[in-house]
Amino acid sequence: MFSEENAKLGVTYPKGFTAAGIKAGIKKSGNLDLALIYTKKEAALAGTFTQNKVAAAPVLYDREVVATGSGHAIIANAGCANACTGEQGMKDAREMAAVTAEALGCKADDVIVGSTGIIGVNLPMEKLTAGIKKIVGELSEDGSDNASRAIMTTDTKQKACSGSLTLGGKEVRFGAICKGSGMIRPNMATMLCYITTDAAITAEMLQKAVSNAVEYSFNMVSVDGDMSTNDSCVCLANGEAGNPLIDSDNDDYKAFAAKLKEICIGMAMRMADDGEGATKLITVNVEGAQNFAEAKKTAMSVAQSPLVKTAFFGEDPNWGRVICAVGYADAPMVPEKTVVSFGDVVVFDKGLGAKFDEEHLRQVMEQHDITVTVELGLGEAEATVWTCDFSYEYVKINGEYHT
Amino acid sequence: MFSEENAKLGVTYPKGFTAAGIKAGIKKSGNLDLALIYTKKEAALAGTFTQNKVAAAPVLYDREVVATGSGHAIIANAGCANACTGEQGMKDAREMAAVTAEALGCKADDVIVGSTGIIGVNLPMEKLTAGIKKIVGELSEDGSDNASRAIMTTDTKQKACSGSLTLGGKEVRFGAICKGSGMIRPNMATMLCYITTDAAITAEMLQKAVSNAVEYSFNMVSVDGDMSTNDSCVCLANGEAGNPLIDSDNDDYKAFAAKLKEICIGMAMRMADDGEGATKLITVNVEGAQNFAEAKKTAMSVAQSPLVKTAFFGEDPNWGRVICAVGYADAPMVPEKTVVSFGDVVVFDKGLGAKFDEEHLRQVMEQHDITVTVELGLGEAEATVWTCDFSYEYVKINGEYHT
Repeated sequence: MFSEENAKLGVTYPKGFTAAGIKAGIKKSGNLDLALIYTKKEAALAGTFTQNKVAAAPVLYDREVVATGSGHAIIANAGCANACTGEQGMKDAREMAAVTAEALGCKADDVIVGSTGIIGVNLPMEKLTAGIKKIVGELSEDGSDNASRAIMTTDTKQKACSGSLTLGGKEVRFGAICKGSGMIRPNMATMLCYITTDAAITAEMLQKAVSNAVEYSFNMVSVDGDMSTNDSCVCLANGEAGNPLIDSDNDDYKAFAAKLKEICIGMAMRMADDGEGATKLITVNVEGAQNFAEAKKTAMSVAQSPLVKTAFFGEDPNWGRVICAVGYADAPMVPEKTVVSFGDVVVFDKGLGAKFDEEHLRQVMEQHDITVTVELGLGEAEATVWTCDFSYEYVKINGEYHT
Repeated sequence: MFSEENAKLGVTYPKGFTAAGIKAGIKKSGNLDLALIYTKKEAALAGTFTQNKVAAAPVLYDREVVATGSGHAIIANAGCANACTGEQGMKDAREMAAVTAEALGCKADDVIVGSTGIIGVNLPMEKLTAGIKKIVGELSEDGSDNASRAIMTTDTKQKACSGSLTLGGKEVRFGAICKGSGMIRPNMATMLCYITTDAAITAEMLQKAVSNAVEYSFNMVSVDGDMSTNDSCVCLANGEAGNPLIDSDNDDYKAFAAKLKEICIGMAMRMADDGEGATKLITVNVEGAQNFAEAKKTAMSVAQSPLVKTAFFGEDPNWGRVICAVGYADAPMVPEKTVVSFGDVVVFDKGLGAKFDEEHLRQVMEQHDITVTVELGLGEAEATVWTCDFSYEYVKINGEYHT
């Protein structure tokens, strides 16, 4: 389903980046739990963070760092989200950055911090500090694999990808690692995505490209509006590719932004595919809407419906639940203009159930990747949302994930 | 948990009402599937219906009947929702009313029709017509029990209640039957509620009382905004009690409306308690909001979170998921002003996890009825929402309910 080319290289695929992942003793399991990404050359820095009014300490801290527009490193731990931890949490986030900066020889406000895991618990600063001092010595050009493992929580699959394009005759590379799997609505501290690129671009244009990419990728994984306390997407661009500096909305910017969006959509699809307990990846396309916002509302309404998701788990072509979710979405629809398809099979046609080949539809429902298309017949706008089905395993994971 | 006094009498508890429930052969299971409620004396009529843009034929028809302000009967079937059935569906709904009216000796626009079950399938009119002719002969003063069974689909428990108050020296009685159990978001054709009263009240004041009661009861069961194609709540008031006619917003009206609201809240709680696969009834109280709309948004955000619901299924006091849902609700909140309690145990106190007696909290989590209280500290408004936990059984019911 996904191109795996160079994916193992992840965040170290672009020139000038190193990474590492180690066991710092924060996860009870004893698995890898501390990740570091580093560029010696100063990088332009951009990021987007959770809209949740209960933002975790690392998010509050990172917003300050991103405001400086430049950075050298990202340090992230799993096993503890440092959320709902008050003043002590802020102090710990700053300390985490300061210790990392000292070990790397940069400034504290050059370091992004990330935390994911259980909330309401303070960071084990002694273990973390010892881990940071150790991980700096582990940085390498093939450290992305360990880094991506170190930020996993309930994820069952590692998530990394990479890509490239040519700008001004120079190869510009992208790499990314990401964690996140609570897809019905996000789990605590669901989504961390760290992207590196060796493009030369100003912080301002980088922020514009990151914000746009997130809007059409991570915000389309039935996460939007339900963001966790720690969700973060951060991008470092160190300019090592030597392309002409992107400092305006020119053709190079458009190509760069399109590639970044593609990288983020790839990661978003991997998150949906690794949704807790997921057995299927479901793509919901809404077409023929009056505008993007309404297309998105309709797609989200379908993608978030537990009744739709359990039907797909049961491989049941229950189009009634889909049309019901389209009907209660907070966006215009007219049953007599609406057409719904599962894969290439029309199941609801302008107010009535459609006649279809039941055997062919059964084959569609048995696939791992299923596309639901809703044509509203009201305009030209469209939106795509990714989600997963809803299984026994989801209930098991979330009913037994004890605090 | 619920007062069962006179509940078996249900819709026949008020004077002048009879009811019946029979097997018409519509449900594949062969169970009771046709219900009739009747008052010989013409009754004032009011109702509220689904806001879903894909409204079923019986809903479209009933809106016309309610507009007349009076009626004699309610005929309802389970096993087929008559939704997404186009012109044929409208024709069938009218026919269903006409056949009932002819058998009862009233007019077609005196008859409310209801349907619940699978969507996209036409009503089996031959069986239905035969059933209607038969059920009229079965009407009796103890027929409510069968009527309430006949409208059940995935419900595991019958839902009925009754009550009374004194107005102008006369006893005024209320009775109700209801079906509905898809509580995460409503299943197809989730909720039918039929209420009878022998109060003397104008259609206009009855509609006002019904609309108000629905707002604080059924619309607070994490159903609002996600209404199915068939959701209906209809009330007949035949005046047999002989109380002074309620025709203005006077003290009698206020007492009547309060009692009707109490009846509807009782039914709403029964629906939440019988949520598909539910093992717990969860009451979410939001207090200290700036207004009711915001209090409701916050309560709904908590009540609709699958992560919160699976945690309660696992009896896990995971307050992090609750505070996260409060944080992403589309309503103001300030972590440092917010207090969250499970039962009488404060678990989150103004920005930080609270110290609590773990053994006592464990006892709270083991109860069948659990109350979550969120004090926002921003104002005086409050809202209460009812929901249930989220179990393996929910996935099983909805993954295996094949179309």
